[in-house]
Amino acid sequence: MVDLDILKELSRATPSRIVLLVIDGLGGLPHPATGKTELETASTPNLDGLCRWGSCGLVDPVAQGITPGSAPGHMALFGYEPVKFSIGRGVLEALGTGFDLQNGDVAARGNFCTVDDKGVVTDRRAGRLSTARSAELCRLLQGIRIEGAQASVLPLMEHRFAVVFRGKGLAAQLSGSDPQLEGKPPRAIVAQSEASQRTAGLVHQFVSRSAELLAEHHPANMILLRGFSQRPNFPSMGEVFKLRAAAIATYPMYRGLAKLVGMTVLDAGITLQDELATLRKHFKDFDFFFLHVKKADSAGEDGDFERKVRAIEEVDAILPEILALKPEVLMITGDHSTPAAIKSHSWHPVPFLLASQWCRSSTATVFSERECARGELGRFPSVQVLTLALAHGLKLDRFGA
Amino acid sequence: MVDLDILKELSRATPSRIVLLVIDGLGGLPHPATGKTELETASTPNLDGLCRWGSCGLVDPVAQGITPGSAPGHMALFGYEPVKFSIGRGVLEALGTGFDLQNGDVAARGNFCTVDDKGVVTDRRAGRLSTARSAELCRLLQGIRIEGAQASVLPLMEHRFAVVFRGKGLAAQLSGSDPQLEGKPPRAIVAQSEASQRTAGLVHQFVSRSAELLAEHHPANMILLRGFSQRPNFPSMGEVFKLRAAAIATYPMYRGLAKLVGMTVLDAGITLQDELATLRKHFKDFDFFFLHVKKADSAGEDGDFERKVRAIEEVDAILPEILALKPEVLMITGDHSTPAAIKSHSWHPVPFLLASQWCRSSTATVFSERECARGELGRFPSVQVLTLALAHGLKLDRFGA
Repeated sequence: MVDLDILKELSRATPSRIVLLVIDGLGGLPHPATGKTELETASTPNLDGLCRWGSCGLVDPVAQGITPGSAPGHMALFGYEPVKFSIGRGVLEALGTGFDLQNGDVAARGNFCTVDDKGVVTDRRAGRLSTARSAELCRLLQGIRIEGAQASVLPLMEHRFAVVFRGKGLAAQLSGSDPQLEGKPPRAIVAQSEASQRTAGLVHQFVSRSAELLAEHHPANMILLRGFSQRPNFPSMGEVFKLRAAAIATYPMYRGLAKLVGMTVLDAGITLQDELATLRKHFKDFDFFFLHVKKADSAGEDGDFERKVRAIEEVDAILPEILALKPEVLMITGDHSTPAAIKSHSWHPVPFLLASQWCRSSTATVFSERECARGELGRFPSVQVLTLALAHGLKLDRFGA
Repeated sequence: MVDLDILKELSRATPSRIVLLVIDGLGGLPHPATGKTELETASTPNLDGLCRWGSCGLVDPVAQGITPGSAPGHMALFGYEPVKFSIGRGVLEALGTGFDLQNGDVAARGNFCTVDDKGVVTDRRAGRLSTARSAELCRLLQGIRIEGAQASVLPLMEHRFAVVFRGKGLAAQLSGSDPQLEGKPPRAIVAQSEASQRTAGLVHQFVSRSAELLAEHHPANMILLRGFSQRPNFPSMGEVFKLRAAAIATYPMYRGLAKLVGMTVLDAGITLQDELATLRKHFKDFDFFFLHVKKADSAGEDGDFERKVRAIEEVDAILPEILALKPEVLMITGDHSTPAAIKSHSWHPVPFLLASQWCRSSTATVFSERECARGELGRFPSVQVLTLALAHGLKLDRFGA
């Protein structure tokens, strides 16, 4: 295998530009009535045209049969082996809120829950608390003062929140308190290393104080914490690939992931047109653009086949404007599949398209799961996508004498 | 790479059922007269129908170009990396006889051979002794008493046998005595670890006593031993994959291999119909079934193209009865290829078919080497087959946040 050390040695800065367009949750499954997937159903004249002169294939974000979370799905596309470059749940949730996570911060995922008068968890989700009510209770907990650290409580959807502890010498090797099953008390949060002993003490203070403050707020009268983690220290894309990389994404989580590999996060606005305007504005300033489009995934998660079809068609419609910028390499794929039929991320491989003047003659005539399965790039791990991009951008030296 | 530790973390028990139908030696080579392989020649309407709504691909049991033995071929399909989870020759031969090998037993593969009056091996196979004569001589050796262990001598085909030593504190790091070439004396059996010293002594006793007993039985007047090994301690499929796994196989070796990964071995009878009846009878009791069909491999080994074609057609005929049980996931493949043209196992990749409600629209219209080579699953290592099965059975949690 070619690892980052080898790529670091082979890569060199050149003026050529690479655009990686990630259609989140792109891959799908056939609709029972038509036998066609979302992508096969969508009218995508521009994508189809592109794949007649580009190259197609299917990519596996983590491995055949493995359903990836958003973090491994993106790390792989950024060129980082997702099993090796893993990101903790707490860190990911904090990034998702747009919180400016610093090195040394300890982040955890939290749930409001219900406990009975013996302290036994009777509902791990506090009756699926409303998002608004959850945000109120987060503000209550935000007031907690603990010695030697500062706690930031960040509301998420429904009963979920994230908490970030900031202070000197914190460490994240801590077991979680979620018992996973109801009918049991919260587990003790235990330090799993010498270095985490003090942090465990701070977290205990926070949990005790939370319990006191929440006592009268049944059903949300307790919290559960898990996924304690710190911002990982990954080598940057600049360092490894010699890329000046920029991220254009409307959702905080994807901006956060991009930051972890040293991308410059651009102000992307809200709509696809905003993202496009950002790309246009900064096209001279960088040589790698990660352009993230969220809608197809959200529709897939909602089980809305038609909405996913339309989300794909919207991307197709802006393609000529990206092509007009004449990037030397344009890649279009997803971080994972999200079939409307499954209503969640899935393990199915993701269609992949690379267009550059250095492509072999294409075998595909339309951009679809089926044609990509027979594409000339074959089926390969997503982590190799960035190497392919560098190659087509003529940014890699020869390997070996 | 996703290893067993990761799969252990992601897997969960669910009620969905997986059937793995192994057509031993499935893959073939074209007949010179027709240009069609055994599978392409066979009339397989049910397999063809299945691959139109399932997914196809080609699997490599060990690696591109490597011809697998039965053990690695099956270990891979059970989800165990065959290079890492290796099984000694002695153990495999003992399992093949149906011997109830215990932890701590030391097994070796034996040959009857001919030595001259200087002790030089003149025929490593004792004139390819008949199986019946070999069995008689095994009974003779079975009478040998050695101090501190008990030796079981198990007849195999022709000049071959297995011997199993049972006693306290035995170890298998012993070199073999087969000189591989004629014109040399048997090699000394040497302990390759401190722990094997005592076992070496016991084996020397056994070999000396065998030489005495066989002295008057020319050409089978000596034995050669090799492949000393002990039952490996593999994590069970229950432990790693949370599967209640059962094996249905008419040959002892495959039942033995299944036992090594903790499957429950069911009484399978003799015919394909017996195996099917076993599957039907126990279908509610397990959530993973390894169903092994031997005939295609035997025909391939015999170089009998037509018999292999018929063996495949017999499997095709029972397919509707398996489908009637409605397993959530049905996979059909082989442990390796056995082309009649080669008369032995080969390195050629093996056709693979997976049918489940979560398959993408298929690209294949018939089940054949050629169509599988263009199948939407691509070409992948057999060790990933089980991960795919778990995915389609919705038995794997998402990887990463």
